[in-house]
Amino acid sequence: MTAAAPTLDAYAELAVQVGLNLQPGQDMLIIADLEHAELTRAVARKAFEAGARFVDVDYRDARLARIRADLSPDESLGWSPPHHVQQIHDLAARSGAIVQISAPPDPTIFEGADGERLARNAEVEWRRAYLKEVTEGRFNWVIVAGPTPAWAQRVFGEPDVDRLWRAIADAVRLDEPDPPAAWREHVERLDRRAAALNAHDFDAMHLRGPGTDLRVGLPESAIWDSASMQTAWGLTYVPNMPTEEIFTTPHAARVDGVVRSTKPLVLLGQLVRDIEMRFEGGRAVDVQAAEGEDVLRESMATDENASRLGELALVDNDSRVGRTGLTFYDTLFDENAASHIAYGEGLPFAIDGGQELTWEEREQLGVNHSAVHVDFMIGSPELDVDGIERDGTAVPVMRGGDFILG
Amino acid sequence: MTAAAPTLDAYAELAVQVGLNLQPGQDMLIIADLEHAELTRAVARKAFEAGARFVDVDYRDARLARIRADLSPDESLGWSPPHHVQQIHDLAARSGAIVQISAPPDPTIFEGADGERLARNAEVEWRRAYLKEVTEGRFNWVIVAGPTPAWAQRVFGEPDVDRLWRAIADAVRLDEPDPPAAWREHVERLDRRAAALNAHDFDAMHLRGPGTDLRVGLPESAIWDSASMQTAWGLTYVPNMPTEEIFTTPHAARVDGVVRSTKPLVLLGQLVRDIEMRFEGGRAVDVQAAEGEDVLRESMATDENASRLGELALVDNDSRVGRTGLTFYDTLFDENAASHIAYGEGLPFAIDGGQELTWEEREQLGVNHSAVHVDFMIGSPELDVDGIERDGTAVPVMRGGDFILG
Repeated sequence: MTAAAPTLDAYAELAVQVGLNLQPGQDMLIIADLEHAELTRAVARKAFEAGARFVDVDYRDARLARIRADLSPDESLGWSPPHHVQQIHDLAARSGAIVQISAPPDPTIFEGADGERLARNAEVEWRRAYLKEVTEGRFNWVIVAGPTPAWAQRVFGEPDVDRLWRAIADAVRLDEPDPPAAWREHVERLDRRAAALNAHDFDAMHLRGPGTDLRVGLPESAIWDSASMQTAWGLTYVPNMPTEEIFTTPHAARVDGVVRSTKPLVLLGQLVRDIEMRFEGGRAVDVQAAEGEDVLRESMATDENASRLGELALVDNDSRVGRTGLTFYDTLFDENAASHIAYGEGLPFAIDGGQELTWEEREQLGVNHSAVHVDFMIGSPELDVDGIERDGTAVPVMRGGDFILG
Repeated sequence: MTAAAPTLDAYAELAVQVGLNLQPGQDMLIIADLEHAELTRAVARKAFEAGARFVDVDYRDARLARIRADLSPDESLGWSPPHHVQQIHDLAARSGAIVQISAPPDPTIFEGADGERLARNAEVEWRRAYLKEVTEGRFNWVIVAGPTPAWAQRVFGEPDVDRLWRAIADAVRLDEPDPPAAWREHVERLDRRAAALNAHDFDAMHLRGPGTDLRVGLPESAIWDSASMQTAWGLTYVPNMPTEEIFTTPHAARVDGVVRSTKPLVLLGQLVRDIEMRFEGGRAVDVQAAEGEDVLRESMATDENASRLGELALVDNDSRVGRTGLTFYDTLFDENAASHIAYGEGLPFAIDGGQELTWEEREQLGVNHSAVHVDFMIGSPELDVDGIERDGTAVPVMRGGDFILG
C-alpha cells in the first residue's frame, strides 16, 4: 500500500498556517512560475480563509527568462523594472507575507544557453531589494515546493508527479496524522540543537570529509539559528518547508581550506556538479566544477563579496529529506538532506542584535554583504564537524553525519 | 482542402510589426492570461527581434480573479496594488508599447459568481491609469486574440482550437500571401470611409434597426477615426487586430432613444444577452438584459458617467469578421462584425486637438469621462444610419448594414 498523494489544499494550508503563520489583515504575495498555477490558487484560497486582506501573485515564466537571456540587448539584460522593485518595498512597508513556490526549472528550457548571460539576467536589483527586506525581518515568508513533470523526470527518470508529491509529503510531514503538531515538535528539536551549539560560543567550525577540510571562522556574536524565525515586529514563522538545518553566518574574512560539493546544484536553471573550491582569508581563490563551471563563476563574480561565505548549516543523517534517499536537484530539499555552505549574502539575524545594525556595522563584525546567496551541499555520512573553542580546544559536534552534540 | 492553422510566430510578427509598429529601443509590456503563455513568448521573441529594449509580462489568472471575487474582504475587493498602477505610468513615461492578448475567459470559471462583487473586483484604479495613458497617446498598443479550448468550445460547441485559429487567421488576413501589404490596403480603405464622414461635419447620427431608434449627438469638433492611431509623439500604429470599424466619440449629453443589442457581450466573465436601453439626455435611464443584467447594471454604475456613451462605431457587412458568420463571444471580434456603441469613457483623440486638452475642457466639449469603456453590438444587415447635418438634413450613410457613403 502506498500513501495517497497529499492534496494541494493540505500543503497550501500548512504553508499558510505553519510556514507563514499568516495573521488576519496581512497582505500576501505569491511568487510562482506559471506552471504552479494550481498550487498558487490553493495557497490564495487558504490565505483568504486565514484572513488575508489582499493576495497578489507574481507569475514568473522560465521560458520567458530564457528568451530574455538569449535576445535582450546588453543594456537591459537583468534590468529590474522599477515597479517590480517597488512591489517588494510596498509589501514590506505594509508588513506583508510572501509565499514562494519553487521547483527546479525544466533543464531543457536552459539547455545551450550562455551561462554568462543567464547569470546577468537575474534581476539583481529586485533580488537586492528582496534580500534587504527579508534580512531586516520586514516579511514573514515561506518557500514551498511545487512538483512538476520535468522535476519528477529529473528525480525519478520518469515524469511521475504523484511519486514526487509523495516524496514531498514525506519531507514536509504531511503523512503525519496531525501535520501542524508534528511540525511544532520538529521545530523544538532543531531549536534544542541550535541552543546546544550556542551554549559553547565557538570561535570557528572545522569540517572534514572526502575532499573537504575547511575551517570556518565565526563572528564573535554569531548565533546558531534553526527552523523558526521572527519578523522585526515579533511574529514567529517557519520560512522553509521542509527544513532540517541549524545554521549561522560565517566570518567573511576567516574561511580557509578546501571543500567539495556532495550533491548537484541547480543555478539559474543550469546544473552545477562536483564543485571544488579553495578558500584563503575568506575568499574563494580557486573555483572548479565538473559541469556548469561558467555559470558558477559568473554568479560568484556578481559583486565584490559574492566569493565569500554567507552561511554555514549543519544537517543530521536523520533528516526527513535525507532519509528519502533522493537527490531532488533543488536547494530547498537538498540543502535539508545534508550540511551545506552558501556563498554571498550573510545572515544578519544570525548575529546577536544584527537586525538593528547598519550593513556597515554588520560588515565590521564579519557578516558578508552581497546581492547573491547560493547554497551548495557539502554534507554526507562521512562528514565530521568540530567546534573550536576560543582557546583552541576542538569539541566534537558531528561524527559520520550524525549530531553528537545537542 | 482547408488552410493550415497560422503559426503563432506569424500572428506575433503581425502584432509587433503592423499592430504596434514597434520601434527599436522601445520597452514593451505584454498583458496576457497565463493560458496564453505560448503566444506571449512568441510575441516577446518577435519584439526582441524588432529591437525592443525590454519585454515585461503581466500574467493574469482568471481563476485567481474568481478566488478574489469570492473571498476578498470587502475593503480590498478590486484594490490595485500601487506598484501595479506604477507599471503603467512608468511605461508611459518611457514611451513604451503594450500588447494585450485577449480571449473570453472560460465561462465555467465565473459560473455562479456574485455579479456585484465581480464588477467591484475589476481593479478600477489600474484601469483608470491605463485609460488615462492610452487616451493621452502615451503608448502604441495593440489587442490580439489568443485562442483557447474554452473559447473554441463556446464558438463551435467543441474545443477545436485549430478551427478557431483558422477563423482568427481569416479575420486578421493571415491567409493573404502578404499579410502586412493586405493590412496597409485595408487600413487605407477604412481611412477613406472616415474621411467621407468627416467631410460632412455631422451634428448627429440617427440609427434605425429592429429594437433600435437612436439619435447620437456629436461634439462640434468630433472626428471619425479608423484602424490606425497615432501616439502623442507621432508614431502610427493599429491598435486592434482585427479591426473593421470607423468610430467617433458621442456627445455625453445628447443621446436619445432606444437601442437593442444584436450580439452577446462577455462582461467581467459573464454573458450579457439581449440588452435593451433607453437614453434620455445622454444617460441610460432604463437598462434591461435577458441574461447578465446584474453585472451590466453594476458596470454601468461604476461611476457617475458610466451610464453615458463614450463611442459610436460603424461597421460594414463586408467586414472580414462579419463574413465568418461566427459569433466569437469576444468584443475584439464581435465589435468588428457589426456597428456598436460603448458606454463609459469617451475618446479624446476623436476630438480635434483633444489629446492636448484637460479632461475638464474635453467634458465641456461633450466627451464622456469614466473609468469603464464597454462596447456592445447594435449593428446588423437591417441597420440604417443617417448623418444629420447642422441644418437638420438627413444624409444616408448606411443602408441594410452597407456603407453607401465613403
